[in-house]
Amino acid sequence: MRDKFSYVQVGVAKIDIQRPRRCGIEEAIYAPGKTVSQLEKTCKFFFRFRKPLILTRLEQAVYQKLKKTNPYLKYSSLARIAFFLPEAAKKKRKIKSFVLVISAGISDAPVAEEVFVTLKVLGLRTQKLYDVGVAGINRLLAHKRLLNRASCIVVVAGMDAALTGVVAGLVKAPVIAVPTSCGYGAHFRGLSSLLTMLNSCAAGVAVVNIDNGFGAAVLAYKILNQFGK
Amino acid sequence: MRDKFSYVQVGVAKIDIQRPRRCGIEEAIYAPGKTVSQLEKTCKFFFRFRKPLILTRLEQAVYQKLKKTNPYLKYSSLARIAFFLPEAAKKKRKIKSFVLVISAGISDAPVAEEVFVTLKVLGLRTQKLYDVGVAGINRLLAHKRLLNRASCIVVVAGMDAALTGVVAGLVKAPVIAVPTSCGYGAHFRGLSSLLTMLNSCAAGVAVVNIDNGFGAAVLAYKILNQFGK
Amino acid sequence: MRDKFSYVQVGVAKIDIQRPRRCGIEEAIYAPGKTVSQLEKTCKFFFRFRKPLILTRLEQAVYQKLKKTNPYLKYSSLARIAFFLPEAAKKKRKIKSFVLVISAGISDAPVAEEVFVTLKVLGLRTQKLYDVGVAGINRLLAHKRLLNRASCIVVVAGMDAALTGVVAGLVKAPVIAVPTSCGYGAHFRGLSSLLTMLNSCAAGVAVVNIDNGFGAAVLAYKILNQFGK
Amino acid sequence: MRDKFSYVQVGVAKIDIQRPRRCGIEEAIYAPGKTVSQLEKTCKFFFRFRKPLILTRLEQAVYQKLKKTNPYLKYSSLARIAFFLPEAAKKKRKIKSFVLVISAGISDAPVAEEVFVTLKVLGLRTQKLYDVGVAGINRLLAHKRLLNRASCIVVVAGMDAALTGVVAGLVKAPVIAVPTSCGYGAHFRGLSSLLTMLNSCAAGVAVVNIDNGFGAAVLAYKILNQFGK
Amino acid sequence: MRDKFSYVQVGVAKIDIQRPRRCGIEEAIYAPGKTVSQLEKTCKFFFRFRKPLILTRLEQAVYQKLKKTNPYLKYSSLARIAFFLPEAAKKKRKIKSFVLVISAGISDAPVAEEVFVTLKVLGLRTQKLYDVGVAGINRLLAHKRLLNRASCIVVVAGMDAALTGVVAGLVKAPVIAVPTSCGYGAHFRGLSSLLTMLNSCAAGVAVVNIDNGFGAAVLAYKILNQFGK
Amino acid sequence: MRDKFSYVQVGVAKIDIQRPRRCGIEEAIYAPGKTVSQLEKTCKFFFRFRKPLILTRLEQAVYQKLKKTNPYLKYSSLARIAFFLPEAAKKKRKIKSFVLVISAGISDAPVAEEVFVTLKVLGLRTQKLYDVGVAGINRLLAHKRLLNRASCIVVVAGMDAALTGVVAGLVKAPVIAVPTSCGYGAHFRGLSSLLTMLNSCAAGVAVVNIDNGFGAAVLAYKILNQFGK
Amino acid sequence: MRDKFSYVQVGVAKIDIQRPRRCGIEEAIYAPGKTVSQLEKTCKFFFRFRKPLILTRLEQAVYQKLKKTNPYLKYSSLARIAFFLPEAAKKKRKIKSFVLVISAGISDAPVAEEVFVTLKVLGLRTQKLYDVGVAGINRLLAHKRLLNRASCIVVVAGMDAALTGVVAGLVKAPVIAVPTSCGYGAHFRGLSSLLTMLNSCAAGVAVVNIDNGFGAAVLAYKILNQFGK
Amino acid sequence: MRDKFSYVQVGVAKIDIQRPRRCGIEEAIYAPGKTVSQLEKTCKFFFRFRKPLILTRLEQAVYQKLKKTNPYLKYSSLARIAFFLPEAAKKKRKIKSFVLVISAGISDAPVAEEVFVTLKVLGLRTQKLYDVGVAGINRLLAHKRLLNRASCIVVVAGMDAALTGVVAGLVKAPVIAVPTSCGYGAHFRGLSSLLTMLNSCAAGVAVVNIDNGFGAAVLAYKILNQFGK
Repeated sequence: MRDKFSYVQVGVAKIDIQRPRRCGIEEAIYAPGKTVSQLEKTCKFFFRFRKPLILTRLEQAVYQKLKKTNPYLKYSSLARIAFFLPEAAKKKRKIKSFVLVISAGISDAPVAEEVFVTLKVLGLRTQKLYDVGVAGINRLLAHKRLLNRASCIVVVAGMDAALTGVVAGLVKAPVIAVPTSCGYGAHFRGLSSLLTMLNSCAAGVAVVNIDNGFGAAVLAYKILNQFGK
Repeated sequence: MRDKFSYVQVGVAKIDIQRPRRCGIEEAIYAPGKTVSQLEKTCKFFFRFRKPLILTRLEQAVYQKLKKTNPYLKYSSLARIAFFLPEAAKKKRKIKSFVLVISAGISDAPVAEEVFVTLKVLGLRTQKLYDVGVAGINRLLAHKRLLNRASCIVVVAGMDAALTGVVAGLVKAPVIAVPTSCGYGAHFRGLSSLLTMLNSCAAGVAVVNIDNGFGAAVLAYKILNQFGK
Repeated sequence: MRDKFSYVQVGVAKIDIQRPRRCGIEEAIYAPGKTVSQLEKTCKFFFRFRKPLILTRLEQAVYQKLKKTNPYLKYSSLARIAFFLPEAAKKKRKIKSFVLVISAGISDAPVAEEVFVTLKVLGLRTQKLYDVGVAGINRLLAHKRLLNRASCIVVVAGMDAALTGVVAGLVKAPVIAVPTSCGYGAHFRGLSSLLTMLNSCAAGVAVVNIDNGFGAAVLAYKILNQFGK
Repeated sequence: MRDKFSYVQVGVAKIDIQRPRRCGIEEAIYAPGKTVSQLEKTCKFFFRFRKPLILTRLEQAVYQKLKKTNPYLKYSSLARIAFFLPEAAKKKRKIKSFVLVISAGISDAPVAEEVFVTLKVLGLRTQKLYDVGVAGINRLLAHKRLLNRASCIVVVAGMDAALTGVVAGLVKAPVIAVPTSCGYGAHFRGLSSLLTMLNSCAAGVAVVNIDNGFGAAVLAYKILNQFGK
Repeated sequence: MRDKFSYVQVGVAKIDIQRPRRCGIEEAIYAPGKTVSQLEKTCKFFFRFRKPLILTRLEQAVYQKLKKTNPYLKYSSLARIAFFLPEAAKKKRKIKSFVLVISAGISDAPVAEEVFVTLKVLGLRTQKLYDVGVAGINRLLAHKRLLNRASCIVVVAGMDAALTGVVAGLVKAPVIAVPTSCGYGAHFRGLSSLLTMLNSCAAGVAVVNIDNGFGAAVLAYKILNQFGK
Repeated sequence: MRDKFSYVQVGVAKIDIQRPRRCGIEEAIYAPGKTVSQLEKTCKFFFRFRKPLILTRLEQAVYQKLKKTNPYLKYSSLARIAFFLPEAAKKKRKIKSFVLVISAGISDAPVAEEVFVTLKVLGLRTQKLYDVGVAGINRLLAHKRLLNRASCIVVVAGMDAALTGVVAGLVKAPVIAVPTSCGYGAHFRGLSSLLTMLNSCAAGVAVVNIDNGFGAAVLAYKILNQFGK
Repeated sequence: MRDKFSYVQVGVAKIDIQRPRRCGIEEAIYAPGKTVSQLEKTCKFFFRFRKPLILTRLEQAVYQKLKKTNPYLKYSSLARIAFFLPEAAKKKRKIKSFVLVISAGISDAPVAEEVFVTLKVLGLRTQKLYDVGVAGINRLLAHKRLLNRASCIVVVAGMDAALTGVVAGLVKAPVIAVPTSCGYGAHFRGLSSLLTMLNSCAAGVAVVNIDNGFGAAVLAYKILNQFGK
Repeated sequence: MRDKFSYVQVGVAKIDIQRPRRCGIEEAIYAPGKTVSQLEKTCKFFFRFRKPLILTRLEQAVYQKLKKTNPYLKYSSLARIAFFLPEAAKKKRKIKSFVLVISAGISDAPVAEEVFVTLKVLGLRTQKLYDVGVAGINRLLAHKRLLNRASCIVVVAGMDAALTGVVAGLVKAPVIAVPTSCGYGAHFRGLSSLLTMLNSCAAGVAVVNIDNGFGAAVLAYKILNQFGK
């Protein structure tokens, strides 16, 4: 019986209402492949029950439509994330440590912003350090203190993604690596950066999928939320 | 000047003596491709200075040779890890929470043991839950309480690696996924499991390289060490 | 001589009129790469001889053109299938058992609908169970009875496709797995889901091509038609 | 509580004793990567409780060791399968229809035998038709009647695997395709045959993993067992 | 000195005027990546010297522009080939035997037409046999006599490309196989058909690049031209 | 009835006795994956009926065994081909033109020899031109007359396989390209050479599978046999 | 302290002002993925401080916008490069030797122009030799003297890229190879040319990424700049 | 006539005796796939004419055999290179600048030694800097002066190969990158390192094939020899 009511049917979707209790985080909605109508129903449900909502990979045009019926929905165009954050959710926050979001280049910024915005919506403190790729490693080394103060570091990098190993070799904090699809031909839309990160010679790097800034942010949240500091 | 002495030359190797201070963990030695003579010199150095030593992917025959000149060196044949743990290192331990090491099948056990042994040498508490793949998901669901008590979970899985997403959907703790090279033809020696884990529909899974149990353990260590609980 | 008349030339196409007798099912028309003129000739042929017709992967715009000369042609825009079902074909149906169509996420729905619509046109009973991916496995476990009553189950899943093995581990019925192209970068447009399904640790899963909902439906039809229940 | 006893711990393995009731078939043991000691414990468990046992991909040398403590264990060296079939299991059989196992070439025979032996142990009737690849299609066409009488057909083929589509275009029965790793360089150890089968232009072919004769047999069993004829 | 004048500079292009004498065939122009201005200069050169011209992969819109300044240029929109055939070239023809162009499906027709049109421009006799894929092998077997009369056969096939091996197993003539990019997801835009053809179990199949109908036609021409029959 | 006797069952193999009449060439036996016993039966059959026999990829040790019961069997250890050529077969030969076998390097010689020996057994005239790779193109250009006299040229090349396009740009004869698996890491065991050959900018190159010297020879035979010169 | 000022923050970008001193060359700006606003800020910075600026892969439309606020910015539409060259930079030039830029075909010209324009902006002497692919090797051999006079040669080639090895086998100068994405299906957007170049049997070829004309030019610059001739 | 004598036939090999004059370097012999007898003939030829000889990838056992008939042949077991250096060749040397050979780890040493030994035989000055991977970047930064003094740098790296970009971002000299096959599963035997190097965000890195230390050394030689310093 209990299982029967572990989710709520919203259109064809089944909203997993037990997820916050089970996983410590609300279900997020991956927008591609869903109809506007389905997205609207989902938004309505989250609003009605004052649940924090994250919509990832949402095109601006679709956001404009959803905005009409859901005026509280906010949007970051660079990160392509729409979100709704009820007052109650904002108050619960208590984690003091911060996550540092590093990007190798400016072309990686959209993915880095997906990390940044998701972390913000999840209520974590964050700092940014963009455009510090190894072609001019002095730019990174100038920020050693900042690197050492972060409780968790997310490295967002395309091309050779060499920044990952350099950062992981400088700090105690766990490093989460997000390969981006940014690069020339033999980059194969992120495959090269993904492999570099998986083969990092600095041990203990956590890798997520190509361009998956959202996943990296959730992982950082799970690490910090676990210890509540 | 300081930079000049940041490492010690041992044969052709440069032992990075600042790594514990910088990264919170000693340099480990990846054995493949190194001569016995080089490995002996390295062991001698770690022993002399009472530094904890981990040698990964070490063949038993090579261990037997190293053992002769380094009698305190221990070995796990399943995990293919040799290690030396000085008394001082044992005493410093203070982390209370534990890491749960899950394997999908028995064929994944060598990699799971690499995780387990590394965690032990690094001084963490651990528990094992082996052979709980999704073909009989009842075996996993029977251990929901254990899953919920762990501070970090390492899932080791070959074949379809479907266990990863199921576990990540049941817990609050960060999940580290280790793909193994165990499977039939179209598994492509671990590629299939690796992709499954990177595409986990439960967000926030940390993926490491194929069969890289050592890397997963170090990541778990960095997460828990960071918060000292 | 008999061979000479085993097909009918319709434009440049050779309609294989012996297929229903040989394979128990009419030839279906794969629309991409065919001209509107060729498709019209084919439709006309099927209508004239009152043969059931399925056109797969048909763009809505092309359907609109075909509709003008073939008013009985129906269309499912989500499944991108056009079909014509003569009265005679409807009456012949006698299979009592049903096929269950499961999708992991909402983004997989177009492919799931291709399965569903094809099964309907082929005259099978069907049920749907959408959005029950393993990130919230409670949603699937709530439907164990439905799973056990189905004579054949089609699992449609993108991303990690982990649902396949979980379902196959819960039921006696044969499971047909359809990987979808829905996922982030390292999903490689369905390759990841395809490999997961081929490596299912629950033995006996039947895999079809990426996004090939039509093929899965035909396979289900062949299984049930074979035994006529 | 019930969940606690849904499996039996045998060494590090967890034997899923509910699987026959849930899936209609006993758990089989995939031998690679398991120690002899672990395999012996598993055999002992199956013998004690008179449960039918299948060990796949078992080397002859390992079988010889297992044979010593488990004299009733039988072995097929071509199929590399060891099995134990209690009297009780033999009596329960009632399926009348048969499965036809076709191989394209003689080099594919080991995998075809894996299908054949597994089907025999599972209690199904079978027939063989080996060495009928399309280079001399007359060899296949000479057996049209046999093809039409089978309730399920397993096609085992390496190299171009073209036989799959030809067979599927000739029969009503569901066709299960097993790619083999047999071929020259650009066969990429089975990848080429796998892709051919997934792209079969005769719709409704069920594909399993490369060289996975066991999986094909289980799928055939699930199809026929479902309908009990 | 002779080498200096072995080509003619036309814009940035170097027209290799010795090629007919060396290779028995004029240089053809691959249109993609070339500017309209460059193509016009090239056309003008061929017209002025009454040399037969073939432009492959030419978009219709570009043809329209070239047509204005080169009124004798002809175009096949299906094959995307423009050509100019001077009277002198037409008269030289003397080969009696013919090339048979076979396509597996209607979706492969554009590539088959590229073969057909090129052969025509090169002055060979040809016949077409389209839509005879193995899903209904009766359609092919009905034409055994035609197959046996051809001096060279070009098989154009996408999807499983199984037709290649079947044809090669029926005839004495050399078979040239052209994989097409037509197929579902795991066809990987022609890779699957290419591999099938390279692995043909009927020995002696000549394979060309994906969708390269032009190359297949030139190969057929070289084979027949060599023997002048 | 006729179909029933179109082959002869020899052990588990079905010898396709109609192949010479249909395809102009006897069935050859691919040795890998076949038991010695099966190969012996096959040899016996060919000897008894005085049919020419080719066994490809035969290990020397296996040849030694076959030799005992079949003393007339000959062997080329470099080409790894065993063959039996009855007197009758030798007399029928009448083709005057010759095939030129070119290798890029000495490391490609085993594959080149497979071409050479197969051509010899098939009764064609041949010439060799080995070690003329493009790193020293003068070695090739020194033989322009030989190149121009050949009726068909087989180019065997590993590494960059650049020789293929150079040769094809110099001659009228059809060029058959055999990629070899000889090369450094990013050669991927022949894949690189295969792709180079498929992408030859000199149009009309016939490509066969990696290291498939046998297939290249059969193709050359089919081309020349077709025209009987 | 010094490290703090080793770069200048311009918007979100960190311009690495020490790079000319460290690497002998200014930082170039890779345009894709950057906003117009960010590019404008960067341009302004370079203009203000009279630093030479190169913007690669810049769309013409974006150039038009940048041109409005930065009138001295120049553009090569074929090479898709915008650049600004202050008077001071022009005067410093002193290298006498020249770089030869060779292209295999006309379709490779855009990448060859990227090499050419970059070399010009970097102040090197250059010569062009376009459309000399191996299908008509006479076109290349006619220019042996030019080849021998160059101090560095850049070979730009798509399709089979065979030109690379031929050139490298003819000269003393270092050869830099740029694979282009120009080719039919199995060219896989440059992968084939890349592999050919990496496997060049003429040793000592320097390979850069697919279509990376900019990188090739910088490498040529580093080689010549090093020796100041 | 001249072309006829541009090489010397030695067994089946054609020694390209014009190569030193054309390319500035003797032909080297790649040992794999060549018979001992062929290698002996080649050695004898080089010795008789006092030409410097390099044999790459030579197994020690084969060297022992060659040594017997060619006592002056020397061997480096780590680099697997045999060589013969006549007195005359030693005297001609005049290049003053040196090449720096850097390795990321100890496991990369065999490839680094192949670079080192080849450079020595070619008569260049060299220095080594091994085991300075980015996991402890302090080890590299301690040697900035050495980096800046080198005229050419060869970076040998497996795993993430991140060292390449870091070095290239620190120096003016051209950097040659050699990926090694050293790494865990998803390293795919060097593919990962190769891609990292091709995607280096520091522009102008010259990449050679996986484990191709010989090629890197030849490239360094061509760069320095060109300028004779």
